[in-house]
Amino acid sequence: MSNFYYQDGTLMVEGLSARDVAQAHGTPAYVYSAQALREGLGTIQKAFAAIDPLVCFSVKSCPNLSVLKLLVDHGAGLDVVSGGELRRALQAGAPPEKIVFAGVGKSREELTLAIQQGVLMFNVESTAELERINEISGGLGRKVQLALRVNPDVADETTHAKTSTGGRETKFGIPLHHAEKIIADGGFEHVDICGLHVHLGSPLSEASPYLLAIEALEQMEQRLAAAGREIRYINVGGGYPVSYASPGQSFRPVLEIGQAIAERLQGFRARGKKFVVEPGRSVVANAGLLLCQVEYMKQGWDHKIAIVNAGMNTLIRPTLYGAFHLMWPAQHDGFTGDWEAVARLPAQGLEKVDVVGPICETGDYLALGRSLPAMKSGDLLAVFSCGAYGMSMASNYNSHGRPAEVLVDGSEMRLIRRREVYEDLVAFEVDLLK
Amino acid sequence: MSNFYYQDGTLMVEGLSARDVAQAHGTPAYVYSAQALREGLGTIQKAFAAIDPLVCFSVKSCPNLSVLKLLVDHGAGLDVVSGGELRRALQAGAPPEKIVFAGVGKSREELTLAIQQGVLMFNVESTAELERINEISGGLGRKVQLALRVNPDVADETTHAKTSTGGRETKFGIPLHHAEKIIADGGFEHVDICGLHVHLGSPLSEASPYLLAIEALEQMEQRLAAAGREIRYINVGGGYPVSYASPGQSFRPVLEIGQAIAERLQGFRARGKKFVVEPGRSVVANAGLLLCQVEYMKQGWDHKIAIVNAGMNTLIRPTLYGAFHLMWPAQHDGFTGDWEAVARLPAQGLEKVDVVGPICETGDYLALGRSLPAMKSGDLLAVFSCGAYGMSMASNYNSHGRPAEVLVDGSEMRLIRRREVYEDLVAFEVDLLK
Ligand SMILES: Cc1ncc(COP(=O)(O)O)c(C=O)c1O
Ligand SMILES: Cc1ncc(COP(=O)(O)O)c(C=O)c1O
Repeated sequence: MSNFYYQDGTLMVEGLSARDVAQAHGTPAYVYSAQALREGLGTIQKAFAAIDPLVCFSVKSCPNLSVLKLLVDHGAGLDVVSGGELRRALQAGAPPEKIVFAGVGKSREELTLAIQQGVLMFNVESTAELERINEISGGLGRKVQLALRVNPDVADETTHAKTSTGGRETKFGIPLHHAEKIIADGGFEHVDICGLHVHLGSPLSEASPYLLAIEALEQMEQRLAAAGREIRYINVGGGYPVSYASPGQSFRPVLEIGQAIAERLQGFRARGKKFVVEPGRSVVANAGLLLCQVEYMKQGWDHKIAIVNAGMNTLIRPTLYGAFHLMWPAQHDGFTGDWEAVARLPAQGLEKVDVVGPICETGDYLALGRSLPAMKSGDLLAVFSCGAYGMSMASNYNSHGRPAEVLVDGSEMRLIRRREVYEDLVAFEVDLLK
Repeated sequence: MSNFYYQDGTLMVEGLSARDVAQAHGTPAYVYSAQALREGLGTIQKAFAAIDPLVCFSVKSCPNLSVLKLLVDHGAGLDVVSGGELRRALQAGAPPEKIVFAGVGKSREELTLAIQQGVLMFNVESTAELERINEISGGLGRKVQLALRVNPDVADETTHAKTSTGGRETKFGIPLHHAEKIIADGGFEHVDICGLHVHLGSPLSEASPYLLAIEALEQMEQRLAAAGREIRYINVGGGYPVSYASPGQSFRPVLEIGQAIAERLQGFRARGKKFVVEPGRSVVANAGLLLCQVEYMKQGWDHKIAIVNAGMNTLIRPTLYGAFHLMWPAQHDGFTGDWEAVARLPAQGLEKVDVVGPICETGDYLALGRSLPAMKSGDLLAVFSCGAYGMSMASNYNSHGRPAEVLVDGSEMRLIRRREVYEDLVAFEVDLLK
């Protein structure tokens, strides 16, 4: 059974009604299902079972400490991209040897901290970074493990231009031929270049870009092996898809793509390589929803507008990426429980509305022209599949505090980040006001 | 003289070098010139002098308490759009009778606070809001002043779709004919509908949309006057342009547009109306810069990449709106001091680079394919015209702390918001971690 479902017309998150969560902690709030988080992680483990990888959950997608701890307690490693994420990972209890550190702009302080803490490996994005790590690790007397992030020039037309990362025109990775030359030449004595890393976009909806990239990696790895340079780790990144039309946890997309990738990695496996994957979205997106409240219903010149208390400050994905999020009132008698049916519902009995936030900007919307049941001021609206890149991208734009985060486990709920209040917004300014 | 200029190859902010500011407070940092803020406000006052309006600075564009206080001390009123902004305004010392409260989603709590504090007026965006205000003010026994925000269905093709707000398809305002009917009908006994408000986008580069909207307002106001309904206030909003190619404070665009609007408002003035304007960007955009540091220079497949320590988490405008920001190294011998010349500089002697941040996302850039002098790791880069919608839209994405804000006044600098550190990022989570 899904962890988000309607019972007698009431939206439930595991054993609790969304209404009870809103009553306890207010709106807007990000609400996560612990069971869905465990299932999300389990599905990745299952999808990639044939290669038994270290699953490093991508912290950027949902950095809340309690979410990280839950995943770590269930065996996840973590993928971090900043000193802040590294410290979150450690504070959530991740063993350093299960942490990989990626990102194009690692500072000296961040690298030093990570080396001192003994992370498993860095994903290195440039020659300049390689030189810097070699220098710092030399100074610290610790030989660190590295994977080179390879830019294979594999573009993917199925993802948004802002989130496709495998093409030659992006800032990511070291051009393939160049990475090969670095490893072949050797010469960075304080580091152990033991891995190859690719990450092609977020999300990708097909396996083909991965399969192409893996093929290029494999040819490279074999040429290097022939030249006596052995690679031990293959990291195929994240970017595995979820069904945004089916927040009831359809794991089909990630299972299919993961199995295809794992299959394609069997050659590496046969030669004894170890594997890392870095899923973010596919673990958490469908494990969280954004609960908000209708503030006003309004009639525009030619269209209806539902003004809710969450906007681009709360969830920027609709305006930044044109992202689709399914949404539905938390109280709705007619709902059958079939999520995919909701996404396809005919317009009969529904109203077409723009669902917008309180921010003074035309781009501040959660959905435009969406067919929804009639709503009124005070109604709760659930925006589904918001577990990934929701709270992590929230801002204080227009001086609204960021929402609360709540974790539901069975019939218990736990506040895992409290709502920001006015005093928090000015805390770093008020003493400096003269 | 401009408040940002090069002296012997060194970027100066008033009497201090950008380098000294970076040394004192680190990077990335938003650095404001107090003199430029005063000039920005003064220019608005000058542009609209013919109608002597109440200038309500739009807090959302730059909500820092010290910036607000400086503007308030120089006579500005404030335009707020949330309870948080209202409290900022009050804390910065703004007299309530110089505060206007706008925004589509005002909650009961926000309205109650504003009525109790005695703000000058609300800009009302819907019938539902009007009913709510009428009810609350009735309950509090205070008759409050309102302007109806009119949606005149004036679209502007010169601004970004996400920031054009005058078209019929947006969420903003009450359709013109409907607003007129509300006023003509009367019947909201606890409020005084004394004003008409329009705001058409941010920024608009031409006066014509305002002139069209004002014409529509004037016809409406005269029909209402003939029917015995008197309007006392005309609020023409904000959205006045700045020159992003000339951070040396070219006030030409705002002076031209402001004077044209003021001229068009003379009919209203002759009939004794009072005026409000709500400029944000035109006051502060060119009064602030974002100072960042080059972390790595990198060679992609076919292009150079400068990785700096500020990204879409720090300044989201380039990726969200495709915004152009002039940028230049803080140390550069060849610079002549002519800003407009920099924007037109030929590519000779310059390199084409993508200037990108540390965020793991392809959309994380400050500029793509920009011609800049050769840079190296450690160099300071100044991103100009970042005073508006810079810090106010910043996030903690990828768990980076938000930057410091520094105010330079003559040869003195003052930290006005301290940099966020790791402990700040997890402050609302850590006690809840079990
Ligand atoms: C290097 C790297 N790994 C993993 C991820 C996680 O991607 P997703 O959340 O789509 O799985 C990202 C996302 O940007 C990334 O840049
Ligand atoms: C109602 C209203 N007034 C004023 C402004 C300020 O606009 P600007 O900063 O472009 O002057 C805005 C911006 O969104 C607005 O929505």
